[in-house]
Amino acid sequence: MDNPFFKNYGPIKAVEIYKTLNLKPNNKISNQNVSDIKDLAHSKKNEITFFHSNRYKDLANKTEASFCITSSNLKDELPKTTLALEVENVLLSTSKITSMFYPDSIDDYFDNTVINISESKFKDSVIFGQNVLIGENVSIGSNCKIGHNTIIEKNVLIGNNCSIGSNCIIRNTKVFNYVKILDNCVIGKHGFGFFPLIKNNLRYPHIGMVIIEDNCEIGCGATIDRGSMSNTLIGKNTFLDNQIHIAHNVKIGSNSIIAGQVGIAGSSVIGNNVKIGGQAGISGHLKIGNNVEIAGGSGVIKNIPDNTKVMGYPAKNLRIFLKDNK
Amino acid sequence: MDNPFFKNYGPIKAVEIYKTLNLKPNNKISNQNVSDIKDLAHSKKNEITFFHSNRYKDLANKTEASFCITSSNLKDELPKTTLALEVENVLLSTSKITSMFYPDSIDDYFDNTVINISESKFKDSVIFGQNVLIGENVSIGSNCKIGHNTIIEKNVLIGNNCSIGSNCIIRNTKVFNYVKILDNCVIGKHGFGFFPLIKNNLRYPHIGMVIIEDNCEIGCGATIDRGSMSNTLIGKNTFLDNQIHIAHNVKIGSNSIIAGQVGIAGSSVIGNNVKIGGQAGISGHLKIGNNVEIAGGSGVIKNIPDNTKVMGYPAKNLRIFLKDNK
Amino acid sequence: MDNPFFKNYGPIKAVEIYKTLNLKPNNKISNQNVSDIKDLAHSKKNEITFFHSNRYKDLANKTEASFCITSSNLKDELPKTTLALEVENVLLSTSKITSMFYPDSIDDYFDNTVINISESKFKDSVIFGQNVLIGENVSIGSNCKIGHNTIIEKNVLIGNNCSIGSNCIIRNTKVFNYVKILDNCVIGKHGFGFFPLIKNNLRYPHIGMVIIEDNCEIGCGATIDRGSMSNTLIGKNTFLDNQIHIAHNVKIGSNSIIAGQVGIAGSSVIGNNVKIGGQAGISGHLKIGNNVEIAGGSGVIKNIPDNTKVMGYPAKNLRIFLKDNK
Repeated sequence: MDNPFFKNYGPIKAVEIYKTLNLKPNNKISNQNVSDIKDLAHSKKNEITFFHSNRYKDLANKTEASFCITSSNLKDELPKTTLALEVENVLLSTSKITSMFYPDSIDDYFDNTVINISESKFKDSVIFGQNVLIGENVSIGSNCKIGHNTIIEKNVLIGNNCSIGSNCIIRNTKVFNYVKILDNCVIGKHGFGFFPLIKNNLRYPHIGMVIIEDNCEIGCGATIDRGSMSNTLIGKNTFLDNQIHIAHNVKIGSNSIIAGQVGIAGSSVIGNNVKIGGQAGISGHLKIGNNVEIAGGSGVIKNIPDNTKVMGYPAKNLRIFLKDNK
Repeated sequence: MDNPFFKNYGPIKAVEIYKTLNLKPNNKISNQNVSDIKDLAHSKKNEITFFHSNRYKDLANKTEASFCITSSNLKDELPKTTLALEVENVLLSTSKITSMFYPDSIDDYFDNTVINISESKFKDSVIFGQNVLIGENVSIGSNCKIGHNTIIEKNVLIGNNCSIGSNCIIRNTKVFNYVKILDNCVIGKHGFGFFPLIKNNLRYPHIGMVIIEDNCEIGCGATIDRGSMSNTLIGKNTFLDNQIHIAHNVKIGSNSIIAGQVGIAGSSVIGNNVKIGGQAGISGHLKIGNNVEIAGGSGVIKNIPDNTKVMGYPAKNLRIFLKDNK
Repeated sequence: MDNPFFKNYGPIKAVEIYKTLNLKPNNKISNQNVSDIKDLAHSKKNEITFFHSNRYKDLANKTEASFCITSSNLKDELPKTTLALEVENVLLSTSKITSMFYPDSIDDYFDNTVINISESKFKDSVIFGQNVLIGENVSIGSNCKIGHNTIIEKNVLIGNNCSIGSNCIIRNTKVFNYVKILDNCVIGKHGFGFFPLIKNNLRYPHIGMVIIEDNCEIGCGATIDRGSMSNTLIGKNTFLDNQIHIAHNVKIGSNSIIAGQVGIAGSSVIGNNVKIGGQAGISGHLKIGNNVEIAGGSGVIKNIPDNTKVMGYPAKNLRIFLKDNK
């Protein structure tokens, strides 16, 4: 995954990583530099990755990473060029090491580097309202409008011909062209991801971003969280109604229509040409196919194949639901 | 329907309308002026209307419009004084023609005509917070309060003794007297209405407004969209709790009580003295009678007669639901 | 209940209270001063309390209040030292008398006493964004951050090491240490509580506050209403996701995890270590035990004992739900 927005504080010495994970030091590699952390598919030599489930065996077999956080029952799947760091809780350990490389990706404190847009380089190229604030590492294309009191925090790339409403807060987000974001949206904050611990939950880093492709419309009051180790994506020409919540790592295809107050939980993948009725909810880590129609109010708790209409809680085939509920 | 807020760019020559609809030109009337577009009931001589469903046959029989967008199977219902413009998709064609008359009603870009209230004519008559912005064509009665950062965009009429919270955005809305709008509401934006097209959905115009009658309370974070060809209405002394979404064209009667996170989809009509529990959802184009009680969490997908209590998804008679779920 | 935030306009002469309740004057005590109104457990000599349901009989037997608003069928439960004021509608009468003592607790007009934080005593001790407003009776501990456009209205106590996002509105709230409140929240407004009356509902006073204990996280767009006669409480290390609504008087224990778009209706009590899935709804006046898990989308309409997993609408035992819905 590209990670254009968060500063990588690496390289980090291997000895520091061993210490953080409470592992016995390995003198042979203590001084070796570890340059970055990535997933199995993208990590390269001198980088560290993680492998926590048998589902990813094929990727693990071929990883190019020099180091891999994993468990005793999985470590034998790794190639000889990858050194296994055996831990009890792979995800918790991965979170700790990611935090070492990307400490800025954990807590989204408000961005106090912002300046008023009228003092920025966009003062002549953007049509803007009153009290608009712009952070560092922001780019805005031609013919864009930004409404009153909207805060574009650091790490936002906006294409051409976009319109952003009033009272929005956007960070760590890439917006393509002809996108319309309505009032009161919060886009790009970290997801609701943490390890529950007594006294003090441990938040995990979110080094992904939000990507909103061409021609999308995002309704009022939407919250779209950025991804943890991947991105959150809204595909082209997909329209969202008001008060919708899109959790971290969700990917929505193109030409989809999502009605008011829908919620999509973390890491679910929605196809193209999908229609979702108002107040429907989709659990996490699901795969919803192309051309699926989900009736308003439904609660989807398992994968849905292409070209299917569902309704109910738990959502089932529409015809069966209607027959059962005559 | 009255349409006080959107500028009518008519009259438009009939020849232009024929061109837009890809119809063969009619030389006899090419130069005739068409002055406005309205629904069947309200359109007059020299105006254009539309007729898309047999349900409206009685209105069509008596329309006074000179022109009517309709389909081949419906056109014979029109009086002789009305010239039928035969098209394949009546609503899409109506949308295109409405856009010619009212191009400003499609996209709600932020209102950049606003000024700070302290520089407006309301600076002495209204109690206001910091950073309050006021657009053109706004009137505010006596003894009103407007909280911090609230934006009253153009086309807002507010009666006497109203209180509006902080961080609200209001446009194209008529507020009667003694109304209380709490923080963070977005009222009067266009509805979620468009024709799905590959690459680039076609938004349709929303020339209606939002009307909020006497003594209403609107909870925090509400979104109330204005109507497309009619108005969205909240009847007198109706109270809405927090985080409610009211879609375009919805009409709610008086003395109703609507709990938190309820969603009402487009064009549904809710009676008087209706109670709706938290998180309930009501599908579009339904008629909910007077004195109806809808239990929290219900999903209503068909009309409900007066004096009925319902619960469940799909919502059914309360007693039957409770018996079925013992 | 402590009530640090609302000014008590008492003492009030007993004769005034009798008048307001349309009771025959009692000459023996007309001139007696009534100093405050509290619930049965907390009221003392010279104070007035209320007793409206047999459920509170044990507390009524031992109340120290000198006066008690109650009904004819309950009055005999009161001790001899307590004078019963017999009325038809105990809660409505209590509301009227509470309004006499605490008239400022009914309507939350925006706080126009606020000043810009840069002109306040916090200008050097707090890290703050642009356009931050601070009301009267506010305290903020060390090492706190407050984002852009956030309004801390009067009566807010914030501990150390707290982070508050942008565009928030907070009033009548006590925030402990290490609390993180994300963007766009509205915390501490009055609840959705009133007596329905034709023409003009009668709002009842909300003299409680919101308390958010150590280490909590409150997601974007939350609305947390303050209590009426008691407080609304979020226990320590409890995390709330985005777009959650917590109604007045709700009490949530510690270490609980509540996913996006959940709604909890008034006066429900949630235990410790409770997990609530996205979009679940919990009716009012319920008791949810410790270690309970409520699946996303569930509608809970009755009490749930400790250590139980539930799902469905109405929510039932998880295993039964899954079996019924195979």
